[in-house]
Amino acid sequence: MMTVSRIKKGSVTQTFAQKDDTLTRLKAVKYSQTLIKKRSVTPEDASCQPWLAKKLQKMGFTIELYKTQGVSNLIASFGSAPTRFAFAGHTDVVPAPQPELWQVPPFDGEIVDDELIGRGAVDMKSALAVMVAAMEDVLASGYQPKTCWQFLVTSDEEGEAEFGTRTIVERLIQDDSLPDYCVVGEPTSDRNTGDVIKVGRRGAVSATIIVNGKQGHVAYAGYAENAVHLASTIVNTLEKTTWDEGCDDFPGTGLQVTYINSGAFTDNIIPGRCEICFNVRYSHRYSLADIQEKIMNRLMALPLSEAALQSLDIKWERHCQPYFTQDKKQDSLIAKAELAIHSVTGIFPRLSTSGGTSDGRFLASDTTQVLELGLPNKTIHQVNERSKLADIHHLYHIYCELLRQF
Amino acid sequence: MMTVSRIKKGSVTQTFAQKDDTLTRLKAVKYSQTLIKKRSVTPEDASCQPWLAKKLQKMGFTIELYKTQGVSNLIASFGSAPTRFAFAGHTDVVPAPQPELWQVPPFDGEIVDDELIGRGAVDMKSALAVMVAAMEDVLASGYQPKTCWQFLVTSDEEGEAEFGTRTIVERLIQDDSLPDYCVVGEPTSDRNTGDVIKVGRRGAVSATIIVNGKQGHVAYAGYAENAVHLASTIVNTLEKTTWDEGCDDFPGTGLQVTYINSGAFTDNIIPGRCEICFNVRYSHRYSLADIQEKIMNRLMALPLSEAALQSLDIKWERHCQPYFTQDKKQDSLIAKAELAIHSVTGIFPRLSTSGGTSDGRFLASDTTQVLELGLPNKTIHQVNERSKLADIHHLYHIYCELLRQF
Ligand SMILES: [Zn+2]
Ligand SMILES: [Zn+2]
Repeated sequence: MMTVSRIKKGSVTQTFAQKDDTLTRLKAVKYSQTLIKKRSVTPEDASCQPWLAKKLQKMGFTIELYKTQGVSNLIASFGSAPTRFAFAGHTDVVPAPQPELWQVPPFDGEIVDDELIGRGAVDMKSALAVMVAAMEDVLASGYQPKTCWQFLVTSDEEGEAEFGTRTIVERLIQDDSLPDYCVVGEPTSDRNTGDVIKVGRRGAVSATIIVNGKQGHVAYAGYAENAVHLASTIVNTLEKTTWDEGCDDFPGTGLQVTYINSGAFTDNIIPGRCEICFNVRYSHRYSLADIQEKIMNRLMALPLSEAALQSLDIKWERHCQPYFTQDKKQDSLIAKAELAIHSVTGIFPRLSTSGGTSDGRFLASDTTQVLELGLPNKTIHQVNERSKLADIHHLYHIYCELLRQF
Repeated sequence: MMTVSRIKKGSVTQTFAQKDDTLTRLKAVKYSQTLIKKRSVTPEDASCQPWLAKKLQKMGFTIELYKTQGVSNLIASFGSAPTRFAFAGHTDVVPAPQPELWQVPPFDGEIVDDELIGRGAVDMKSALAVMVAAMEDVLASGYQPKTCWQFLVTSDEEGEAEFGTRTIVERLIQDDSLPDYCVVGEPTSDRNTGDVIKVGRRGAVSATIIVNGKQGHVAYAGYAENAVHLASTIVNTLEKTTWDEGCDDFPGTGLQVTYINSGAFTDNIIPGRCEICFNVRYSHRYSLADIQEKIMNRLMALPLSEAALQSLDIKWERHCQPYFTQDKKQDSLIAKAELAIHSVTGIFPRLSTSGGTSDGRFLASDTTQVLELGLPNKTIHQVNERSKLADIHHLYHIYCELLRQF
């Protein structure tokens, strides 16, 4: 059993022993089904955002819908309090290229037994549906928000993310209306909703190195400089670089060579050129500049010829900023989320920064605390992506509890 | 000046100060032109061998012409003495894919100033022409051969060489008529005809290693085994293997990685498979089995996981035997060649085993001494392949001198 030392006495631990047919009729489930039926494969929105906007408008939200370079975005806000709390997420889903492999059609939103099956059932139309349902019900109950509530949605999270949340943040900066707290509905849970929340994500950067040697005939190796030999020395050096170690929930920094190729092959030719690609996932303990400097220093210290060193060509690309939300802040978002989760599930979440990048990186800053809290993520991007109705129901109650703190 | 201590006193050092127009009318040059005009790109013979056979038949040679898998071969022999001396070579030439870059058409056999220009002018139609001219003239002078003379020619030396000299040797073994001495007419000289002869060639073998790791996502490197990291460790080990060192004329053993490829590339995927190819050129100090054992032992000693080691898949291919003719033997072919060269040019040749493989490897054995002696090789396989008429003329006299010793 988890200890409850960190939770306020008196919070209600509810049980949800409803029958399946009750769950089927839940508003959050209905909303999820409606969104799944809209085929919003990245960067298409397929009118998910207008549908959400209509609901939000009815509640009294101010709506801004805009489209940039084929990407749809929605910024909605309720009230004008100086402190802002945001729900954030995305309407786009990854494709379902082999619908025939699915138990039910991927864009029908069907329920089988006690599970909702469909593309986006986990990542993350159900979370958007739950957010809207929770806001409707909390406001309908007569609750007066103490903060300004925001709802930030893009249709390009699964793709390049160039014209999605990044542009939403630019607009918020322009309007001086960045949120102070932001919960992203990405699927973060492991076995049950709320058992894991993400309080950060590692940064990522890729690089390509072109290694230039000197082509020659294998019988006259003295006149050549073998680019594959050089490249392997470089790969070994990259691989053996030591970084911060981390653990399962807070992974450290790691480098993986993702590609090597010496090009067209002839049995008796010493290759003069070799291409290497690598990817670094790095914790918030490093900046991009730290990573680049460390790698450059190691390469320049290699016992390679002057010519080989000078012709080393490194191109850095696809940089994703890391983010990390610390628990120490006053009015910590983490503490509020822990409280909400415990009051619903009776357990405290594990805090984690593992997994790939997310749009959280665009939202997090010194003035914006970000965390990600969503459904169990086992089936994301897979055939038969599916969510237990009970998990959706639990997420609804967690989001309701959270809203009542803002 | 070279010392002449190893040469028999009394041999004639001739000078060849003929005018260019005299050289142009030389029989060996005329024969070269005739052969160059036959477009015998590997494995085509383009009736070079029938033309040679006709000349040989006139001299009294027994002729065997046969074709196997598109490759033409000629075995001719004169006399039935128990000791046999062979000239060997090939009628095929490499292509001339860009004739427009040539000074004169590559298959016209034109003479410009004091040079014969054309594909095969060096490698090695001129040498075949010289062999035939020399045999004709030596026999016409009334010389009675003390040994059986053989003439062994294939049309596939530049290609796979699968059905060329290899099959000639098989037939000679069957007939119990392998040569005791064999001079291959490959272009071995550096600046002037006779300044370098090859007394051996390194062996060669290629291999492909498939490195199997375990594919995974870069964000979860702990669950994967990066095949590029493994492959680079292997390349480093292969590269750092020490062999016999050799020098310019007797190169030692060397290994070059000729290819590395981790296959299709995705920025965030740790590759699970990587292919490495390498090529070993090895001196006569090693056998193929030595090479294979040494490499396997080094790979098996690597600190790789049991799984990685067990799935290492090595395929050996394209093996070429080394050969090495030693000077120590009684009636050494090397000594006879040195004598002939010195008597014509006044210098002794440098003995070398450098350069790529040659058909000498099929001919050499414990009972057959082989060496290669031909024209300066600067322009072989190039645009404007060409030979000085004086070099052809010198080769003619060297071959004549040599024949008179057999
Ligand atoms: Zn998502
Ligand atoms: Zn040749």
